[in-house]
Amino acid sequence: MTLPRILTHYRAQIEEGLLKSLKGKSLLYAILRYHVGLEDERGTPAKNMGKLLRPSLVLFTAEELGGEIEEALPGAVALELIHNFSLIHDDIQDYDETRRGQPTVWKRYGVAQAINVGDLMQALAVTQALTVGKEAMSVLVEATVEMIEGQGFDLDFEGKVVGVNSYLAMVDKKTGALIRCAFRMGGLIACVPSGVVKDLGKMGKELGRAFQIRDDLLGIWGDKAITGKPQGTDIRRKKKSLPVAIALARASGEEQALLREVYAKEEIADNDVKRVITVMEHLDVRKTGEEQVSHYLKCATHQLAELPFSEQGREDLQELIDYLAIREK
Amino acid sequence: MTLPRILTHYRAQIEEGLLKSLKGKSLLYAILRYHVGLEDERGTPAKNMGKLLRPSLVLFTAEELGGEIEEALPGAVALELIHNFSLIHDDIQDYDETRRGQPTVWKRYGVAQAINVGDLMQALAVTQALTVGKEAMSVLVEATVEMIEGQGFDLDFEGKVVGVNSYLAMVDKKTGALIRCAFRMGGLIACVPSGVVKDLGKMGKELGRAFQIRDDLLGIWGDKAITGKPQGTDIRRKKKSLPVAIALARASGEEQALLREVYAKEEIADNDVKRVITVMEHLDVRKTGEEQVSHYLKCATHQLAELPFSEQGREDLQELIDYLAIREK
Repeated sequence: MTLPRILTHYRAQIEEGLLKSLKGKSLLYAILRYHVGLEDERGTPAKNMGKLLRPSLVLFTAEELGGEIEEALPGAVALELIHNFSLIHDDIQDYDETRRGQPTVWKRYGVAQAINVGDLMQALAVTQALTVGKEAMSVLVEATVEMIEGQGFDLDFEGKVVGVNSYLAMVDKKTGALIRCAFRMGGLIACVPSGVVKDLGKMGKELGRAFQIRDDLLGIWGDKAITGKPQGTDIRRKKKSLPVAIALARASGEEQALLREVYAKEEIADNDVKRVITVMEHLDVRKTGEEQVSHYLKCATHQLAELPFSEQGREDLQELIDYLAIREK
Repeated sequence: MTLPRILTHYRAQIEEGLLKSLKGKSLLYAILRYHVGLEDERGTPAKNMGKLLRPSLVLFTAEELGGEIEEALPGAVALELIHNFSLIHDDIQDYDETRRGQPTVWKRYGVAQAINVGDLMQALAVTQALTVGKEAMSVLVEATVEMIEGQGFDLDFEGKVVGVNSYLAMVDKKTGALIRCAFRMGGLIACVPSGVVKDLGKMGKELGRAFQIRDDLLGIWGDKAITGKPQGTDIRRKKKSLPVAIALARASGEEQALLREVYAKEEIADNDVKRVITVMEHLDVRKTGEEQVSHYLKCATHQLAELPFSEQGREDLQELIDYLAIREK
């Protein structure tokens, strides 16, 4: 699958900015470079970064609306650092042992140091953001608070039955906050009027939902060779995802009982994972999930029409939207 | 022991500011209010806060140098939030089960949520600091980074023999950074010249060392009825403290072997704690520690003479310095 231009065009600049922000000499900075994929396990330079979606959106939006890339870069890097600090801590909270095919930070350096370097990354994000201006900084820290609140809801959901509405409220915070922030920061750095910043936020919200639901689908039906995770990973981890919320809302009788029984277990066996997937498929959950992704992406396209983007910018963003609908990792 | 004026005079204002900064409605904010001692385990208002040393120093310094308390308060609150987020995470890292006589956050809400609310508190600190101006904000985030680096050194020291110099380098970051920051932020909010900010930082460094070494002494010889922790707690926790560094530097023969043997153990028994204390007392470690506290406090007094404080301000700070030498908790 070809990557959309937005995800390739700014990549080198973001990598350079990230490397600069994490150039400290002590072990802690080496751990952070390892985490983001700028270095491998032996400390040699690597290119094993993620999609860099959020910082790419900052730079794209800023540039598209007349801002300077150089001015936006610290904000973009700050946002990626916030996203990555949350991943370091998420991996501890979820007991995840690998990320992008490598051992997670806690797995390699222990939980105590993993907590600590996550904290460091959050602080370094603020250091980066110091130059972007007070408004953009406010938006970033507001989004950080929201994301953490969303993670708190998610942790609090543990062992509870979660409906679709609670799920969406959680996703708007946990995933949506940083994607909304990407667009809004880009706009603020380009000094657009507050109405445009608002519209950018609306588009970000729709994209955030679509992005997360696609993630949820990949967490259950994703191809292991592409995602790096076995099928049904999110079921094994008892992750609160849209497929589970839909399945629980739809299932009755024996299927409802089966879902509740499996999700009440301390540990979920491979056979249970298969049984849950069978129920989900019987209930057409996957198809509904895909329809939901399409729905929110269509809302995003609709919002895009409101924005003062160039023809080229509109095309680029539409290409990204189309990619998000079908991405396999 | 009567508390010095600096620790009582600003207390009500700081409490109010903290309460405002943590007024969110969700569970996460209730956990944070519980952690700082603004609420008890049942969520009813409480007054079980710590000494509030750092924010008191911000307000005192700002006021003393001609700044406005109202302007300094968000900075003071931000600093206390940074200190407290680090305590939430420290308690996880050190397996500490109680703080100020109450169960620690991770003990009550689990490690995952404790990591998360610590993250939230760090982000809320930045939210608070948004109003204090760019320079004060820079100083705060710089101090946060330093503190976390110090914690990283501390974690990295685990299982290693640490000399007095490495110990001091660690303390200057882990404890010194926030105390230096308190004075410097106070100065910046009062808009003093950069030379004064520098001198404030120097005094903070000396006070930070004295404060931490006193803490180290209390961690071994403190009165359980006052500190809330049994004698020798820091030995049982294998904490890298000045008494240990001094003892290891001085001990020879059998005593050296005993210290290394005990500190190499997975778990330290009560009897081992007693044996280590006996060695320390034989080596005059406690006395040296107390001399070190006096030494750094004398350096602080010396630095104080350089600062453009009023007579009353000088007296107040000297009273605090004298208190830090003999505090029992």
